[in-house]
Amino acid sequence: MNKPASLDNIRIVLCQTSHPGNIGAAARAMKTMGLSDLALVNPKKFPHVDATAMASGATDLLDGARVCGTLPQALAGCSLVIGMSARRRELTHDLVDAREAATRAISVASGQKVALVFGTEMSGLSNDELIQCQLLAMIPANPAYSSLNLAAAVQVLAYELRMTALQSAELPAPEFPLALHDDIEGFYAHLEETLVRIGFLNPLSPKRLMPRLRRLFARAGLEKEEVNILRGILKSMQRSQDGIPPPPDL
Amino acid sequence: MNKPASLDNIRIVLCQTSHPGNIGAAARAMKTMGLSDLALVNPKKFPHVDATAMASGATDLLDGARVCGTLPQALAGCSLVIGMSARRRELTHDLVDAREAATRAISVASGQKVALVFGTEMSGLSNDELIQCQLLAMIPANPAYSSLNLAAAVQVLAYELRMTALQSAELPAPEFPLALHDDIEGFYAHLEETLVRIGFLNPLSPKRLMPRLRRLFARAGLEKEEVNILRGILKSMQRSQDGIPPPPDL
Repeated sequence: MNKPASLDNIRIVLCQTSHPGNIGAAARAMKTMGLSDLALVNPKKFPHVDATAMASGATDLLDGARVCGTLPQALAGCSLVIGMSARRRELTHDLVDAREAATRAISVASGQKVALVFGTEMSGLSNDELIQCQLLAMIPANPAYSSLNLAAAVQVLAYELRMTALQSAELPAPEFPLALHDDIEGFYAHLEETLVRIGFLNPLSPKRLMPRLRRLFARAGLEKEEVNILRGILKSMQRSQDGIPPPPDL
Repeated sequence: MNKPASLDNIRIVLCQTSHPGNIGAAARAMKTMGLSDLALVNPKKFPHVDATAMASGATDLLDGARVCGTLPQALAGCSLVIGMSARRRELTHDLVDAREAATRAISVASGQKVALVFGTEMSGLSNDELIQCQLLAMIPANPAYSSLNLAAAVQVLAYELRMTALQSAELPAPEFPLALHDDIEGFYAHLEETLVRIGFLNPLSPKRLMPRLRRLFARAGLEKEEVNILRGILKSMQRSQDGIPPPPDL
């Protein structure tokens, strides 16, 4: 999975963050999801040893972070500004969930800069800050306890942005070749014959046994090598029942 | 948004966590998403003041956490066990992304318990732990820096679980109940014993046979009734080898 270019156009803006550890943890969250543009508006303490410690392998984002005196400075050059909100606000803007926000952000970010703005740990964004946003986004949290840690909220949004950006990317192809249909049918025939021989399946009253076993293995999606193993087991069963010793290599 | 009942059936299992602060932060992440069942396998330090501090308003989850000596204890009663992996493993199980894992988990959790298992901060899950999982899940992270903080990973999974639960109240429950983890382990033990008896498995040189068979059945997601059938087959094999006739109803 190559880095989707749209993620380069996403800026995370943290306003008046109280705990420098949260800035570091947010930087780490961003980098794990392929984001790199971080702006800090009046952080209480920055740079700070706690920020560096919590950033782990993402200290490059801290080094590159722009520290701004005002929110408009941090938003310079952005075409879409999305404010994060933990609750419904009076006089709300459009309020969407994190997934919908990511969809809108990535769509714009294919060609223009987008900012996601996070408020303080205690009270979120102020009304003066909110008014500079075009859209509000919230994470659909537990109404009984909706207080995500700041870096955890950044992680969720960054994750949604990455998932949206990767949407078309596919999971890696299967590692092991699947068995051919003919080979699987050969295994079922061998299995049925063995089950009759050991007295588990009565051919005069087979009931639903073979269909049930077929259903189980169909769900697994048998691989070529697995069919060989299973047929090896059946052979050993028959040999053992006939009192023939196992081959010398076992 | 009421709390979806399926979230009550999701258990988060943290294995050998080094930093108690991460346990607290994970508890907070869980509670914000409506999860409450936390199990800790051999935490380095717990209870601990750092865990309490990082849990913020989620200390009730720490108070209710079960501390276990082994992973099987933490998994007791679960029908689906999903291991979190930061990377592709050799001889992997099915590997799905966090969203797909959440879909599968919530579908089972409408009626049965599901565990999500997280390894240590440094090295993730051990091979012995992985082998007890039926499915592996990964967060599609930045390949250049995929190291999510433990609590951040819990946050992302808990978020996906909540999103899925909120969206899919109408998803059909599985048709047949899945087998319990305990019963599946019992089947594996019975299978191994039988394979040794029939001479297919040399206990002095077992190679990768049992892990391969576990992988196959893990992929299928064994149902309760299927485990009964498979164990019935094993019993018949043993009886037949000992020259004992099948029971009269067959």
